[in-house]
Amino acid sequence: MNISSTGLTKYPALPQPYLLFLGDVDQTGYAKTAFGLAQWADDKCIGEYSFNKSGLTTGLPRMTPTEAARAGAKSLVIGVANQGGRISAAWIPSLVDALKAGLSIISGLHIPLSSIPELAQASRDTGGALIDIRRPPSDIPVGTGRKRSGRRLLTVGTDCALGKKYTALAIHRAFAERNVNADFRATGQTGIMIAGGGIPMDAVVSDFEAGAAEILSPDAPADHWDVIEGQGSLFNPAYAAVSLGLLHGSQPDVFVVCHDPSRSRMLGLEDYAVPSIEEVIDLTSQLGRLTNPDIRCAGVSLNTSSMDSKAATRLMARESDRLVGLPVADPIRGGPQFERLVTNCLL
Amino acid sequence: MNISSTGLTKYPALPQPYLLFLGDVDQTGYAKTAFGLAQWADDKCIGEYSFNKSGLTTGLPRMTPTEAARAGAKSLVIGVANQGGRISAAWIPSLVDALKAGLSIISGLHIPLSSIPELAQASRDTGGALIDIRRPPSDIPVGTGRKRSGRRLLTVGTDCALGKKYTALAIHRAFAERNVNADFRATGQTGIMIAGGGIPMDAVVSDFEAGAAEILSPDAPADHWDVIEGQGSLFNPAYAAVSLGLLHGSQPDVFVVCHDPSRSRMLGLEDYAVPSIEEVIDLTSQLGRLTNPDIRCAGVSLNTSSMDSKAATRLMARESDRLVGLPVADPIRGGPQFERLVTNCLL
Repeated sequence: MNISSTGLTKYPALPQPYLLFLGDVDQTGYAKTAFGLAQWADDKCIGEYSFNKSGLTTGLPRMTPTEAARAGAKSLVIGVANQGGRISAAWIPSLVDALKAGLSIISGLHIPLSSIPELAQASRDTGGALIDIRRPPSDIPVGTGRKRSGRRLLTVGTDCALGKKYTALAIHRAFAERNVNADFRATGQTGIMIAGGGIPMDAVVSDFEAGAAEILSPDAPADHWDVIEGQGSLFNPAYAAVSLGLLHGSQPDVFVVCHDPSRSRMLGLEDYAVPSIEEVIDLTSQLGRLTNPDIRCAGVSLNTSSMDSKAATRLMARESDRLVGLPVADPIRGGPQFERLVTNCLL
Repeated sequence: MNISSTGLTKYPALPQPYLLFLGDVDQTGYAKTAFGLAQWADDKCIGEYSFNKSGLTTGLPRMTPTEAARAGAKSLVIGVANQGGRISAAWIPSLVDALKAGLSIISGLHIPLSSIPELAQASRDTGGALIDIRRPPSDIPVGTGRKRSGRRLLTVGTDCALGKKYTALAIHRAFAERNVNADFRATGQTGIMIAGGGIPMDAVVSDFEAGAAEILSPDAPADHWDVIEGQGSLFNPAYAAVSLGLLHGSQPDVFVVCHDPSRSRMLGLEDYAVPSIEEVIDLTSQLGRLTNPDIRCAGVSLNTSSMDSKAATRLMARESDRLVGLPVADPIRGGPQFERLVTNCLL
């Protein structure tokens, strides 16, 4: 699939195609970025570079940095994270090899690549760039609240980490299949790697949060859609500021609520219950109205990965009934429910 | 008055006394820092340095950096801010002059002083320090939403720049006069300069906004009050993220709504109407309930600086009637209305 990044001149386009670095990681849970890229940007991924013994693979051909460079790769993407988001000492020689092979290195980890002396030295020696996508652009303006042209969709959530990126990507793909002129707008590290650009909203200074969301989805033709990846939740006591700045700056015409029915407490915050879908619809509409009085909820994206197909279908139908006919779908399952949700977005 | 800063050891002591820099700014709304310092830390201010044509003044004697240095000043404080917190090109020669006169420069703006080549050079030449108080501590944790001990008051507003800091300082002083154990908690540059400590909430990375507010007002004895300086407005499309993170992290028991009845449009945002006091009470209560279910509004702080005494008294009485007896006062005027507001905070 093709995810364009037009209009993002603030964030340099990432050098593509990629070689995905898996290193010694042998659990899918620590290779989310690599799997996300292999799934949503496979045309931008040339292979994977792995030296694990478990056979963990994204399905892309396994190759060394030298082989990848010869095949046209421009950068190595660190597609793994170990606990604490650090760069494992065991990875460093391989990353140096990649620079020596002529690749740049792209990282979404907290620690800046240039803070590792061996990488800083190899970057100087080879001219290969060290790119930290968690660092936001330095010249973000404050928000203005000015209504921009074009149409916008934002995914929001009852909590963190339950499918807002996946839902936005799936809706963007469905729009493209219907020949709707649309861009996926990335707000987190994996999304930015997939899109080849974007702004890491959680790393932006609070005063500029809404302003960052404004430049992420600039003025566009009237029939153009920006499909914007949501962050956090308005009901999360740690991250609601991120969600509100993104909502105000995105000024969405349409939002889709993402929810995981198997989760009852907020992730990592046992004192806090996950809000109901209705509460999220009401609060998002209420607060979003400030910058777009016409905001409306177009449907619910239900993460039913913990259920079998029959139970999932039953639950989606029951939730849709309860929500007075609002489309409820699981984009991973697709099907007529999801098509109905996409149609309702475009109304 | 004495404003304690216990528990906040992140900021070094600032070189005093100050020369307040007003530059070419000719609107009070953009000179909050200078006016706040002149009022709440006048014993630390030696004069003002201004080249505006409007006659805007803090009331302190006007002097050049050389005159101020001769009179004992140790630093020039940039007491003005334009939108976005940038440094105007027209200010730079004057700031260089201040360094040459032997002063240090203290700034609460977003842009680091040392990033301006002329200032960096003059600082090297003269040995004068460039001090950015807007740099937040580097080790702020993410929020937890955990309920802390002690009591908390937060000032909130219908917009920016209409009295939230002043109101918090006045309430803190009134608490002290009633022998209530209380700390003023500063969240903006002027407050930090006055208090000698605090966290510049608008400079904190969004992901850590609520966490910063949590460490700003730590666990305290049950009868202790933190009086927390509010920021922005939940209804401001540029800054609502700051306000929401501060509200969630502060988990206030009590809030006071600050309002300027002479302002009908948001500062610098002509497309946006200032919300009503009731709207701010309702939304603050609704969103604040997430981290403190017992949150309540204790009153309204009305900025009546544009009215004569009689009109102000009439307006406060009328507003209090309209708000079903809620105390409405102007802390600048004080009087029985303000005493009633303070009493209602302590209930």
